[in-house]
Amino acid sequence: MKLYNYWRSSSSYRVRLALHFKGVPYEYVAVSLLKGDQHQAEHRLRNPAGYVPVLEVEENGKLAVLSQSVAIFEYLEERFPQKPLLPKSLVGRGQVRALAELINSGIQPFHNLSTLNHLKALGVDDKKWAAHFIDQGLEGLEKLAAKTAGRFLFGDDFTWADCCLIPQLFGARRFGGNVDAFPLLLRVEQACLALPHVQAARPEAQPDAQA
Amino acid sequence: MKLYNYWRSSSSYRVRLALHFKGVPYEYVAVSLLKGDQHQAEHRLRNPAGYVPVLEVEENGKLAVLSQSVAIFEYLEERFPQKPLLPKSLVGRGQVRALAELINSGIQPFHNLSTLNHLKALGVDDKKWAAHFIDQGLEGLEKLAAKTAGRFLFGDDFTWADCCLIPQLFGARRFGGNVDAFPLLLRVEQACLALPHVQAARPEAQPDAQA
Repeated sequence: MKLYNYWRSSSSYRVRLALHFKGVPYEYVAVSLLKGDQHQAEHRLRNPAGYVPVLEVEENGKLAVLSQSVAIFEYLEERFPQKPLLPKSLVGRGQVRALAELINSGIQPFHNLSTLNHLKALGVDDKKWAAHFIDQGLEGLEKLAAKTAGRFLFGDDFTWADCCLIPQLFGARRFGGNVDAFPLLLRVEQACLALPHVQAARPEAQPDAQA
Repeated sequence: MKLYNYWRSSSSYRVRLALHFKGVPYEYVAVSLLKGDQHQAEHRLRNPAGYVPVLEVEENGKLAVLSQSVAIFEYLEERFPQKPLLPKSLVGRGQVRALAELINSGIQPFHNLSTLNHLKALGVDDKKWAAHFIDQGLEGLEKLAAKTAGRFLFGDDFTWADCCLIPQLFGARRFGGNVDAFPLLLRVEQACLALPHVQAARPEAQPDAQA
């Protein structure tokens, strides 16, 4: 299994967290967003939309590529169910996925590289823009998680929602979000950062860090 | 089962498509985004982030609410597997989810109501902004779908990816996207619009249409 990704990309980080939690070995292939590798023909063949991460997998002896962190996560959950990242109850599964989506579609798109570049081209203050959407999204997340959180965002087990939270808080600090306003999220982050699989997936621990 | 939603909201439309496809009866509760019902205390109790749709469901005799269209879809797929909206192969399931996510996190967030309002407040041309992200996203989708499409986005069966495509093209026309540039997507849309469950889920067919 090969993961085409970038150390600092938050959706790459989510997928690394899922892989390390499940103990699935993979080959790390760096795609430098800084150098524009995502726009090269080689990467566009893997994902015509030009995003990372992309996971290369094998099915019935054939290679296939999967894009979009949520789609990759669901694939991993179905293929490696032994260490689940979703609870058993249908409603609980829905709640974990809702927490994750609030980040995936509700916050991250507003501060990804292509959005910030477009804002700069329009002459809009991209840092202020990113902070606005991050703070607004984290406020909703803090309230939604208040209904379900234990040690982690959903009860006392690490889930896919936590895989999305950790990179989002990393991004929030990078882009000037006011993370101190969200005590529940910070407490869960602390609990996550104490876990070895979280440490192994961190941006700073990747081979292309700083590249 | 109660669906809190709005006739013209594209993520509401996605969930209605899934419900009608599966033949699951539900009570329609209108939340007027135009009147600001989504910000009222009553709706914030259902979803602190203030979005529609929200699905109210029952588990073990208790009522629960689920937000985020993707989370609601996965719940419906697990609870009503008889008429599936995902194929059987793990890679195929990943590909359908990737097509859907390209819309869910790659296009729709850029033209939802709160984004457009924020742009207006900043003095940015929100129509030009929406058209830019819609056209860029649909371009990626047209190319990604070229690898998998048959009569529908993934082969010859209607899937969750089609549930996301139909509302996205509806939104693209509303916000000035150049839909004529994407012949594959238009062909799939035509095939979808011929289906009775798609007609039943259309915005114009809902009780709060025009409200």
